[in-house]
Amino acid sequence: MNVNGTHYRTVWMQGTEVWLINQNKLPFNFEVFAAPDHFATCEVIKDMRVRGAGAIGVTAGYAMAQAFFEAASQHDANYVLQARKRIEATRPTARNLFYATAKVYDAGLAGGLKGAMEEAERLAQEDTQSCKTIGHFGAELIADGCRIETHCNAGWLAFTDYGSALAPMYQAAATGKKIFVYVDETRPRSQGARLTAWELANENIPHTILPDNAGAWMMSQGKVDLMIVGADRIAANGDTANKIGTLEKAIAAHHYGIPFYIAAPLATFDFNCTNGKEIPIEARHEDEVLYQSGPDRNGIMHEILVASPGSGAYNPAFDVTPAELITGIITEKGIIKPNVEEIRKLQ
Amino acid sequence: MNVNGTHYRTVWMQGTEVWLINQNKLPFNFEVFAAPDHFATCEVIKDMRVRGAGAIGVTAGYAMAQAFFEAASQHDANYVLQARKRIEATRPTARNLFYATAKVYDAGLAGGLKGAMEEAERLAQEDTQSCKTIGHFGAELIADGCRIETHCNAGWLAFTDYGSALAPMYQAAATGKKIFVYVDETRPRSQGARLTAWELANENIPHTILPDNAGAWMMSQGKVDLMIVGADRIAANGDTANKIGTLEKAIAAHHYGIPFYIAAPLATFDFNCTNGKEIPIEARHEDEVLYQSGPDRNGIMHEILVASPGSGAYNPAFDVTPAELITGIITEKGIIKPNVEEIRKLQ
Repeated sequence: MNVNGTHYRTVWMQGTEVWLINQNKLPFNFEVFAAPDHFATCEVIKDMRVRGAGAIGVTAGYAMAQAFFEAASQHDANYVLQARKRIEATRPTARNLFYATAKVYDAGLAGGLKGAMEEAERLAQEDTQSCKTIGHFGAELIADGCRIETHCNAGWLAFTDYGSALAPMYQAAATGKKIFVYVDETRPRSQGARLTAWELANENIPHTILPDNAGAWMMSQGKVDLMIVGADRIAANGDTANKIGTLEKAIAAHHYGIPFYIAAPLATFDFNCTNGKEIPIEARHEDEVLYQSGPDRNGIMHEILVASPGSGAYNPAFDVTPAELITGIITEKGIIKPNVEEIRKLQ
Repeated sequence: MNVNGTHYRTVWMQGTEVWLINQNKLPFNFEVFAAPDHFATCEVIKDMRVRGAGAIGVTAGYAMAQAFFEAASQHDANYVLQARKRIEATRPTARNLFYATAKVYDAGLAGGLKGAMEEAERLAQEDTQSCKTIGHFGAELIADGCRIETHCNAGWLAFTDYGSALAPMYQAAATGKKIFVYVDETRPRSQGARLTAWELANENIPHTILPDNAGAWMMSQGKVDLMIVGADRIAANGDTANKIGTLEKAIAAHHYGIPFYIAAPLATFDFNCTNGKEIPIEARHEDEVLYQSGPDRNGIMHEILVASPGSGAYNPAFDVTPAELITGIITEKGIIKPNVEEIRKLQ
């Protein structure tokens, strides 16, 4: 998608360097970063310079390919296995990460460095193409004049391009439908207010930021027609792990009879995971809740304390929305119901 | 309650000056402020140096008394009526404000300056006493080991002393019960993370701050036994206006079968208001969502932008929770069911 009119992908490979848009600097500064080896690429996943299910997956695939390059120059047979474990330890919840490391690892064992590099790039292309197709299927849910709420960022920054939850909105807008997007702020890291709002502004889509607390109230006032969010991992029964707060919105949408859709490519499905109880939920550092960073009115960046000093915080990064609260899942194979039978057919 | 071991009230009168703890400076700085006349007192209500249903009411009563003093020295019969309108225009949602201005206005017309001053002080005493009694009734709901979630700040800072939602927790802790409090951050102004956490720390009550998004997830994991929140206005049928996000938590608590209580004195009930649809909901400036302020790690205060530049925000300050989602209302007359019959008996 576009940044000031120039097309970018979220992450790409140049030689054996992984290049990416540094999402920790957005929306205040647009910077790209190059990770020279798989150690550096692990760091960018861990500290969330790259984040979002699809982008994490593609980046992890590239990191796996980097490890094959490093192993080739070091003649260490055990190296790639150690690297795979290191990459898989960066973030526990996103299914796409494990999908990508497994694919590139297998391709590398079978086809060497060339096989690994080609598979990593194929996964990136697959991610982009899946999102584009999700956009086409999802746009059918969006009527002219539709007011859509979304949570966190499942836009192009969360994938290589287009996004999952935002792709249907981009597609609807591209075909001339008038839409309005309510963007949940999505504390504690505010990916809604910082990334989704930034994406929508770059694509000239009318939107406003909502404090997370305002979601149910807006629904109760008849101001939300449809909710679409992304996913970090979908179990075989349709239970879906996504950014913390998704569950609360799904309960509210269910209460008010508002359609609640998940948008995700097949790479997000964990067919071996029976239900949501088996999905590991990452708890992150309390400082993400207690501190916030951004520029003052003179553009100088600060990190400030936004809570009472000495009181701790609990920071679960994801929650699990049970399948019964989900209207449907928008995939590149079409829109399915969140149940064992329909999900099995995707496999 | 205590601040570093010294007892304070949230607001009090010295001569004709209204003194108060400046809540915009908390939790980072403890400062008191003196408002010399009713104009200055209107300003402290408007800019939320004083906030919370009970504290707004008592402060408004004091402002009304100040106006009688000012009118006496200016010999202007119309002055107090204009002042009343000015005070009532500061914040539209809190019932306690209109309760207090009406009481002090009537007392002033009947008994002159002395009548107004006495009534304003009587309202402050009534507020404290009501909260104390709410604490005693509410503590009966709290078992030893209870894990309680609360939203925003309905502690002593929101009244003259003790608080409404927090009073039962203070009382339970004072009688030796072990409790743990989950404090919703309560964006956009973060009164939970800033004020409730500060109050609980000063009273040595174990607690942790939760991002607003985490509430339903904690409930789904069986970590919340009870939820108690305050109220800004309660309609005759039990529909309750309170800080934005209360509705979302009530829906989640209902979904998981967790008892959800409102704690509020009689002054918060609007017997003339048939149901929640008649309660005016204040929308505040978007900058409360887009900017945050606090100290950096060197203690220097900054105001920073926390959202994508140029994207607006919508900032409804309150929402209305329908009576059917409320388990009970803790008042100074006992715990009642939220329905017309039980509320009528309070009148």
